[in-house]
Amino acid sequence: MTEKKIIANLKKILNPNSIITGNDLKQRFYHIWKMNVPLEAVAVLLPKNTKEVSKIMHFCNHNNQEIIIHGGLTNLVGGTETKKKQLVLSLEKMNNIEDLDQESRTITSQSGVIIEDLINAASEKNLLLPLNFGAKGSAQIGGAISTNAGGLRVFKFGMIRHMILGLEVVLPDGTILSSMKKILKDNSGYDLKQLFIGSEGTLGVVTKVILRLHEKPSSRTSAIAGINEYSNVIKLLKYLEKELSGALSGFEIMWKNTYDLMTLEPSILKAPIPKNYKYYIFIETLGSDIQNDYQLLENLIENALEKKIIEDAAMASSDKELNNLWQIREDVSILDSNSNNSQHFDISIPIPKIGEIIDSICIELNKLQFVEKIFIFGHVADGNIHFIIGKKNNSIESIEKINKIVYSPLKENNGSISAEHGIGLHKKKYLKTTRNDEEIKLMKKLKKLFDPKMILNPKRII
Amino acid sequence: MTEKKIIANLKKILNPNSIITGNDLKQRFYHIWKMNVPLEAVAVLLPKNTKEVSKIMHFCNHNNQEIIIHGGLTNLVGGTETKKKQLVLSLEKMNNIEDLDQESRTITSQSGVIIEDLINAASEKNLLLPLNFGAKGSAQIGGAISTNAGGLRVFKFGMIRHMILGLEVVLPDGTILSSMKKILKDNSGYDLKQLFIGSEGTLGVVTKVILRLHEKPSSRTSAIAGINEYSNVIKLLKYLEKELSGALSGFEIMWKNTYDLMTLEPSILKAPIPKNYKYYIFIETLGSDIQNDYQLLENLIENALEKKIIEDAAMASSDKELNNLWQIREDVSILDSNSNNSQHFDISIPIPKIGEIIDSICIELNKLQFVEKIFIFGHVADGNIHFIIGKKNNSIESIEKINKIVYSPLKENNGSISAEHGIGLHKKKYLKTTRNDEEIKLMKKLKKLFDPKMILNPKRII
Repeated sequence: MTEKKIIANLKKILNPNSIITGNDLKQRFYHIWKMNVPLEAVAVLLPKNTKEVSKIMHFCNHNNQEIIIHGGLTNLVGGTETKKKQLVLSLEKMNNIEDLDQESRTITSQSGVIIEDLINAASEKNLLLPLNFGAKGSAQIGGAISTNAGGLRVFKFGMIRHMILGLEVVLPDGTILSSMKKILKDNSGYDLKQLFIGSEGTLGVVTKVILRLHEKPSSRTSAIAGINEYSNVIKLLKYLEKELSGALSGFEIMWKNTYDLMTLEPSILKAPIPKNYKYYIFIETLGSDIQNDYQLLENLIENALEKKIIEDAAMASSDKELNNLWQIREDVSILDSNSNNSQHFDISIPIPKIGEIIDSICIELNKLQFVEKIFIFGHVADGNIHFIIGKKNNSIESIEKINKIVYSPLKENNGSISAEHGIGLHKKKYLKTTRNDEEIKLMKKLKKLFDPKMILNPKRII
Repeated sequence: MTEKKIIANLKKILNPNSIITGNDLKQRFYHIWKMNVPLEAVAVLLPKNTKEVSKIMHFCNHNNQEIIIHGGLTNLVGGTETKKKQLVLSLEKMNNIEDLDQESRTITSQSGVIIEDLINAASEKNLLLPLNFGAKGSAQIGGAISTNAGGLRVFKFGMIRHMILGLEVVLPDGTILSSMKKILKDNSGYDLKQLFIGSEGTLGVVTKVILRLHEKPSSRTSAIAGINEYSNVIKLLKYLEKELSGALSGFEIMWKNTYDLMTLEPSILKAPIPKNYKYYIFIETLGSDIQNDYQLLENLIENALEKKIIEDAAMASSDKELNNLWQIREDVSILDSNSNNSQHFDISIPIPKIGEIIDSICIELNKLQFVEKIFIFGHVADGNIHFIIGKKNNSIESIEKINKIVYSPLKENNGSISAEHGIGLHKKKYLKTTRNDEEIKLMKKLKKLFDPKMILNPKRII
């Protein structure tokens, strides 16, 4: 079908101002970090409701028309990249929060709502949506569902998969699959929504969701600890989780040179403890009684010092100190801007092996003369470590050499090449590193069952 | 194929003493409550490892031979019922706990291990497997995975789905699908294990699992509260969850006449508070400091009394009182033995609507002259309510009348006919009550993709 004909057909489905074409496409882009690169596409479609999404998918399926889903455009694995002959389905106008139920403690939302808006809406009613990651101010909830987003606090509250009670999805053929329930437990047949969570929009377009909320904690306390032996990182995690019961909500790690840079001028962030230790642990508890909670964490930290589990520590004794502490962990864009030709990783490793595997990866990386900087940090209680690697050049050869070093210990140690970010287009080549042939064969079978014409987010993952 | 030929073929795969046939089948049964009913089947197969399961499935698939999976035989929806011409695959000899990792806090197990054995193994290493339901002494972990078991403490720890890190499954054609990882986060492609959790063994045979464990809490405190208005049940739940942060682990409900009977002679259980209230709430917290935890719960209960959220309450001030309290909630077999021709339900209702919906169900049930007793209790914080209904006769007409009354409010209120137990054979007829046509159509498509010959646990669910 010619582009002209495609657009003529789409105008029968959508209001003309919901279709962006021609010169107007130059204002659009495929990633928030690539705003200066005009979008390639036949058109961008801006449906306002599920029915319109269904009609678009029905049209695409009937006409073998490839279509790429756009949300907040923060995807880190090329999931939102487009080609000239593809349509783009952007969910930005499906940004309505439909219901906030204080008694069920649920929020019902269209999939184009920005995550921070959901967090704030819940917070206003004294409820907590425990999603918390860097891109929350831009990322849309539909994208977070499609990539099974994680972030901070996963070991306490789980990935977004664990927060989803109800889901509505449009299948590639236009069928609306609605499983919108506010209930925690439903064992009546297959839990179909699980298929769409984390499958990167390849099996359906998420259009609506019901998320579980929690009562909002009224107190937050934090500390930072310095440790030299990795075995003590595990001891501290076990000790705090035991003593704090369900209140431990953050247990993050940063390696020495990462901490160094984050607190080095011109950074405005202050180092709460000296820069002598190999590992820095960022601790957070959530509770309801600030005085007691602070006292409890302080006692535990003192005990850990006495028992020599930790070398050094500092409590965050004011909001200012608390913010400073967490900015050291969270403002990691500083690391990126300090790295030439930066390469990012987001791997999973079984927790007990992190120390040794990261050490051996670093030894290998340091042998490469073109590697300039290695910054390491992450969600140690989840077994999820991030790397930012700076290097002299960005040749494919260099990139591949680094990939090989970082990914090679993962297969034998049953890790994952992608803890959070997904596979998209960029990591496809390495999927075999951590998924076996039978798994990949079954993924392909499922894709074919849902999308036999391969029109929806084609070529992602598999 | 003749039975003789089937068995001859199976003997090429399995050790002869792993095949039970002929007269020996009379010692077998299909449910622990039906031990006196001899099993109907061609043979019971007792594989010792995944490879043997794979060979069995390959044989069945190749020869269009139906096969039913047996675990601990505690299924409540007919999932383990068999027919004369079917084979039975029992996992009882696959009962090896393969690994208990204190640092990763995971347990790796074959699927035939009894749940209580896993709980105890974890407990010996000061770790908690937070699965807790009545049948845990008989039920096997594979069955619990296949039905996505819940039980007590779900609102804190989630269903078993949330505890599963790794899974190994044999597909109906004999393919071994292994996704055995100890990591919390893995977004590398489709999360295939989700498909097998809760699909009642219709898509594959679970053979191995890695479960996430938690640090074992060292203190447990409990209280019981009497409430007359349902709106106050929700207020209490919100209040306790807010003030106790992550420590609230149990919030169960019992209606008046259920509490009455549970504490009436000849029951040895004592009523901690009078029998005047409409609702009884059973509260549990888990923590690490018994004195503080007790004091905190006591203060909150006193505040709730002052604020008139609750009418009456008692703390469990000794282990004896604590056990007595929870036995009132847990020993519900007493209710069953007090009910003629008992009929059981396990429904989900959005939490705010429970009070009103249960009231209206009771009004309708009481209009039926053949209904003798109505016992109601459940996991109110999960929106999951159980009914045990005693009646004068067990005619299909009476059963259907009761089903209709209990299930009829669920569709319009987006509830579920099965919160925990599954659909199996017994609830198939009512699946449409809470799942729509598109969902059921997709379930059928998935079943056909995985098991085109419909040989594995056939006719369950759909």
